[in-house]
Amino acid sequence: MITVKEIAKMCDVSPSTVSNILNGRSNMTEETRQKVLKVVKETGYKPNYYAQGMRRTNNKTICIIAEELCQFSTPEIVNAIMEDAESKGYRTFIINMSMYDKWEKSGHFLGDEKLLSENTDPAFSEAQAIRADGIIYIAAHGRILDCVPENLDIPVVFAYGVAKDNKYKSVVIDDTNSTEKIVDYLVSKGNKRIGVIAGDVGNFHTVWRLTGYKEGLEKHHIEYDESIIEYGDWKRESGYQGAKKLIEKGVRTILALNDLMAAGVYDYVREVGLVAGEDVSIFGFDDREIAEFLYPPLSTSRIMLEDIGKKSSELIIREIENESFRNKKHEPFRIECTLIERQSIK
Amino acid sequence: MITVKEIAKMCDVSPSTVSNILNGRSNMTEETRQKVLKVVKETGYKPNYYAQGMRRTNNKTICIIAEELCQFSTPEIVNAIMEDAESKGYRTFIINMSMYDKWEKSGHFLGDEKLLSENTDPAFSEAQAIRADGIIYIAAHGRILDCVPENLDIPVVFAYGVAKDNKYKSVVIDDTNSTEKIVDYLVSKGNKRIGVIAGDVGNFHTVWRLTGYKEGLEKHHIEYDESIIEYGDWKRESGYQGAKKLIEKGVRTILALNDLMAAGVYDYVREVGLVAGEDVSIFGFDDREIAEFLYPPLSTSRIMLEDIGKKSSELIIREIENESFRNKKHEPFRIECTLIERQSIK
Repeated sequence: MITVKEIAKMCDVSPSTVSNILNGRSNMTEETRQKVLKVVKETGYKPNYYAQGMRRTNNKTICIIAEELCQFSTPEIVNAIMEDAESKGYRTFIINMSMYDKWEKSGHFLGDEKLLSENTDPAFSEAQAIRADGIIYIAAHGRILDCVPENLDIPVVFAYGVAKDNKYKSVVIDDTNSTEKIVDYLVSKGNKRIGVIAGDVGNFHTVWRLTGYKEGLEKHHIEYDESIIEYGDWKRESGYQGAKKLIEKGVRTILALNDLMAAGVYDYVREVGLVAGEDVSIFGFDDREIAEFLYPPLSTSRIMLEDIGKKSSELIIREIENESFRNKKHEPFRIECTLIERQSIK
Repeated sequence: MITVKEIAKMCDVSPSTVSNILNGRSNMTEETRQKVLKVVKETGYKPNYYAQGMRRTNNKTICIIAEELCQFSTPEIVNAIMEDAESKGYRTFIINMSMYDKWEKSGHFLGDEKLLSENTDPAFSEAQAIRADGIIYIAAHGRILDCVPENLDIPVVFAYGVAKDNKYKSVVIDDTNSTEKIVDYLVSKGNKRIGVIAGDVGNFHTVWRLTGYKEGLEKHHIEYDESIIEYGDWKRESGYQGAKKLIEKGVRTILALNDLMAAGVYDYVREVGLVAGEDVSIFGFDDREIAEFLYPPLSTSRIMLEDIGKKSSELIIREIENESFRNKKHEPFRIECTLIERQSIK
């Protein structure tokens, strides 16, 4: 099999130039690059990355471990990581653990952390196996995470979830401030009695968003009324059920803590002959694709997935390249949502 | 550093048992597996897959190359591949080329095949670099693909697109038969003058779906009328524009060849004071998430992404494990869609 040295000779460049080109580092002219790539193609040379992996300490490789690729938030975070990483000469591999199916099948929807570790341990091993220099772990839903194997010796950054041990840096939604901003907006539009359809009691997002809701009310001197807080399970049907209770209590402004439950509010409102955006004001959270397809289009709080991905990538690369930064503990980085005004608020 | 041999000795099993457990092959008791994993954890042993990769011929690794992870169809195909592959002892890595952004930035939306090969060549190299035994290439939109590097010596299966050279097997939507079935359904509901909003002229899906449309009409002795075929670009706004032209021509049954354009039909219908599902019947294609959030919910043709993924995985594993199957040319495997009846047809 032909070697890098031989290719270098054929192209009249140094072997390290050939290596650099093959590894995507291109501080040489486009002409040289093309010449080398042409010869590489013609000769059928194939780099042996396994051998390289054994030699090199920095493979310029980031491994992304995703809990669930089919969760709406994951692909955008992945794309943003990649864009940033590629611009800095890092390649990325993705390992998808497909946890939603497994969680559902285990009957412990989202809650089975033992099942999780059965899947994370092999995933972290795989990441080491391809000699990744760092790992970005993308949670499918926000919560405290404690899943890094004890002996792991490469940096890990958490996206969309918070590492239990803050020696691992985390990048999450700023649920509290983002929700406070929603209350500001709703109050500015004349809504003072704001009913809420929250997610599961105790859930990380539920708790933090309700904190922001209360802070918002306090700021505007509106008394908190527990009787107009309903709890759902983030799904459309639970939004419908929550809306039923709130509407019966005379509430006409409903903040659903995700867009799917907001869609359930539309369903109930329509069923009882009221008009969304006129008789009942509805606000969501997430700004996933469906928000624009509801009628009238849903005003909501956009999770800045791109920013979460970009920040995670910046952090992991800084950790890979700077040992002292790597060892610094840090509070979670919180990315505020953007309020998207559409037509569902009167 | 501790070796497999030493771990084997500590656990009183053979080194190959340890290797098998570490590689996810578990034809041993759960007790043995737990014992070995415990020792592995305690000793901090880390397998050197690079060394293994140099030794082994079958790494039991499938590399998935995705053109665009953010395309609605991709994550579900990936999950289905993984489920099948994992059940057969294969691990998967995903390389995402994120092409939508790049295509849009290059100003050649989806059409720039030169730009594509600049991205596919490194992706195929990466797949070889991790010593994948086979590659599944997931297209972001259906078309003829000719992107396998000449010297690649591992099998490739195409999902959602068709390989130009049928020595590579492909798994795609059965656009033609699926559309014929839609016509059957619409005719059975009394719709005989069916206007169409197609995608770009010449696009693979446009051509094949229109073929199915014509075959359906012919079967029911309805004359094909070119004047009620409008061409869009798969986006919502073009559905709106297409609907405008068709409604003005008196058409009251509209088949949009994707759900996004169908959403544009709802927009126009509502704007002119007509009622979707009553005055105007609307049918989509894809069954992406938004279909259920339109009002009334959209009847559409569900692309069986799970089946496409599963079939692709079955094919690549059969090719990896059976050389003679690998060398057999084969026409694309076509997976028929499932007709989903909701409330948008009168």
